[in-house]
Amino acid sequence: MLPETTLDLSGERLTVIYRLVGDQEEVKRKAQDICVEQTIEFPLELVPDDDIRGKIVGQIETLEGLDNGSYEAAISFPIEIVGADFVQLLNLVFGNISIKPGIRLERFCLPDRLLALFTGPRFGRQGWRERLGVPNRPLLCTALKPLGLSNQTMADLAYRFALGGIDIIKDDHSIADQGFSPYRERLEQCVTAVERANRETGYRCVYVPNITASADHLVDRAHMAKRCGAGAVLVSPGLIGFDTMRRLSADDRLSLPIMSHPAFLGSFVVSPGNGISHQALLGQICRLAGADATIYPNYGGRFSFNREECHSIVEGASAPMGSIKPIFPTPGGGMSMDRVPSMIDLYGQEAIFLIGGDLHRRGPDLVKSCQYFRKLVEGMVPPA
Amino acid sequence: MLPETTLDLSGERLTVIYRLVGDQEEVKRKAQDICVEQTIEFPLELVPDDDIRGKIVGQIETLEGLDNGSYEAAISFPIEIVGADFVQLLNLVFGNISIKPGIRLERFCLPDRLLALFTGPRFGRQGWRERLGVPNRPLLCTALKPLGLSNQTMADLAYRFALGGIDIIKDDHSIADQGFSPYRERLEQCVTAVERANRETGYRCVYVPNITASADHLVDRAHMAKRCGAGAVLVSPGLIGFDTMRRLSADDRLSLPIMSHPAFLGSFVVSPGNGISHQALLGQICRLAGADATIYPNYGGRFSFNREECHSIVEGASAPMGSIKPIFPTPGGGMSMDRVPSMIDLYGQEAIFLIGGDLHRRGPDLVKSCQYFRKLVEGMVPPA
Repeated sequence: MLPETTLDLSGERLTVIYRLVGDQEEVKRKAQDICVEQTIEFPLELVPDDDIRGKIVGQIETLEGLDNGSYEAAISFPIEIVGADFVQLLNLVFGNISIKPGIRLERFCLPDRLLALFTGPRFGRQGWRERLGVPNRPLLCTALKPLGLSNQTMADLAYRFALGGIDIIKDDHSIADQGFSPYRERLEQCVTAVERANRETGYRCVYVPNITASADHLVDRAHMAKRCGAGAVLVSPGLIGFDTMRRLSADDRLSLPIMSHPAFLGSFVVSPGNGISHQALLGQICRLAGADATIYPNYGGRFSFNREECHSIVEGASAPMGSIKPIFPTPGGGMSMDRVPSMIDLYGQEAIFLIGGDLHRRGPDLVKSCQYFRKLVEGMVPPA
Repeated sequence: MLPETTLDLSGERLTVIYRLVGDQEEVKRKAQDICVEQTIEFPLELVPDDDIRGKIVGQIETLEGLDNGSYEAAISFPIEIVGADFVQLLNLVFGNISIKPGIRLERFCLPDRLLALFTGPRFGRQGWRERLGVPNRPLLCTALKPLGLSNQTMADLAYRFALGGIDIIKDDHSIADQGFSPYRERLEQCVTAVERANRETGYRCVYVPNITASADHLVDRAHMAKRCGAGAVLVSPGLIGFDTMRRLSADDRLSLPIMSHPAFLGSFVVSPGNGISHQALLGQICRLAGADATIYPNYGGRFSFNREECHSIVEGASAPMGSIKPIFPTPGGGMSMDRVPSMIDLYGQEAIFLIGGDLHRRGPDLVKSCQYFRKLVEGMVPPA
């Protein structure tokens, strides 16, 4: 038998909401299992220790049936398990139980003392608006693609996008540091192209290079982006790790807004009864991990998210969270210009609208297509 | 329209096998979609460029029906898209399509020129065996738990485990750097305890601290582990990122075997038609990312993996892969001593057997329980 332990804990707890599938008995067992699996992973009957059983093991606060036949369990854990580590927070809320089917992390609620450990996004919505000089409309974003273009061609595209009034021109997330498109050269050429357009328009368009890379190169690329005059950086936290993104956002030498791309994260959300909810993953977690904008596929495009799921991301991106700033939902993924009214309807002014291929589809004059996109968003022309 | 591009590619391609669900027409569309989504993400008809269409876009090599009604598509991509970056390899094989339901990454086959970019595990199976002085039986592993114990108690447990003949004593993956169990103190106390036991037994048991932590602390903890005499380190790549693990394995100053824990990775595997196969995720990717052992829940324990899935992990951990070493499958997750014969049946000698709580359940004398575990594995006592 193990000896007794005396644990001096504050009593403050974080609460995690899980959606569970099954009948009432099964769901109760699952909730109890989460309490143990996410903490001690040990046969309860072999823990002689009242302190560990009473303070460390998770506690079911509520267990409620939903209309759709599933249940929501609110389970609390002592904040001391997290220590001061974002990685350990993720581990506590979803580490081992990610491996158990029929459990979905819906959302979490962190007490102020825990939130105070994390700085969250450095810029947030207000920071973007100040940077871009756009006080009150949705921001316009497009992507440089397709993969395989020369840097010179991409810089030329960037010039025309900027001339047409796009606010944010990002690399496609698959464009990295390939032989046919070396990172540094692309960065320099695209920044130069966008600055040239800005001088002509008076706008403050930014180029956003994709810095997603191996840990050996990531920070160098970030700082190079800063030095060369990029206006923000694009990273895929599914590929580099959420905490690596968080670290970039906390880097005073970088100090650029971060756009988060959902590559490699899809498996968390595509299976309805499993994984992590859209709200928690692409809203709460991305935000807490320092993203200033969270890109995801809007409903009705090339992907399968529905309207409600997209709306829940807005909730995660903006609901009060201590002093953690709200961030911009950035719906994209096959959006076309005729979707702008429905995007305004769902997102209002507080979003970045990402349209890629459709700007090319509209005709050979890219500048004109961008101008049309901008006027649509500004409400200056009626939707087609 | 975009201008023409001239791409000078080698012609060498990597091949990725995806499992697709649907009828034949639907599956064909999905395969074509993968070819585009994973590369150019752009309307094909707007790419005037024969080079981009012919060389960059993925190509369906084969599309075959399986007995279970699903299909396997082999899709090839030019190796130049990967550049020299492990992160970009993951992005290419599963970035955006992770967000599309009904596609599962089954396995991949990398040409030697691409494999040569990655060093893989530094130790591999042979490295573990030399380190531990165990030439030819399954290695014995247990975990220090439950979370909430004092470091002194954990060190005492470690001493008794080592005395009983366990080869590898790891932290439970939820034990990090909490106020009630500071990392450095635990490291020092557990290393000392295991060394004391080794002097008594003549064995070469190792203590394996969990270094999984925020990017700010991870490398420090790794090097501290090395300095203090830890015999390997435990990381959860789902939490820190696969490439961060890869970087640790390539760190000459660290030079310790790495055990990979599946925390936060479960969502990739729990939904059968989506995500990444057990073989690719816990076998191929973990191995390519430098893990020397891949921990996962064995079938018939607290989790839901089946025997076939576990066997496929062995395949991913050991099938020829250029000069990348084979690694140890490390089945655990609620294993008990009476499962040892079935584990030997499935895994033979080339595995690490991880048993946690059951060593405690067997009775108050932990040393004796460990000795029994060892004798069972050595075939010196008949199974109960």
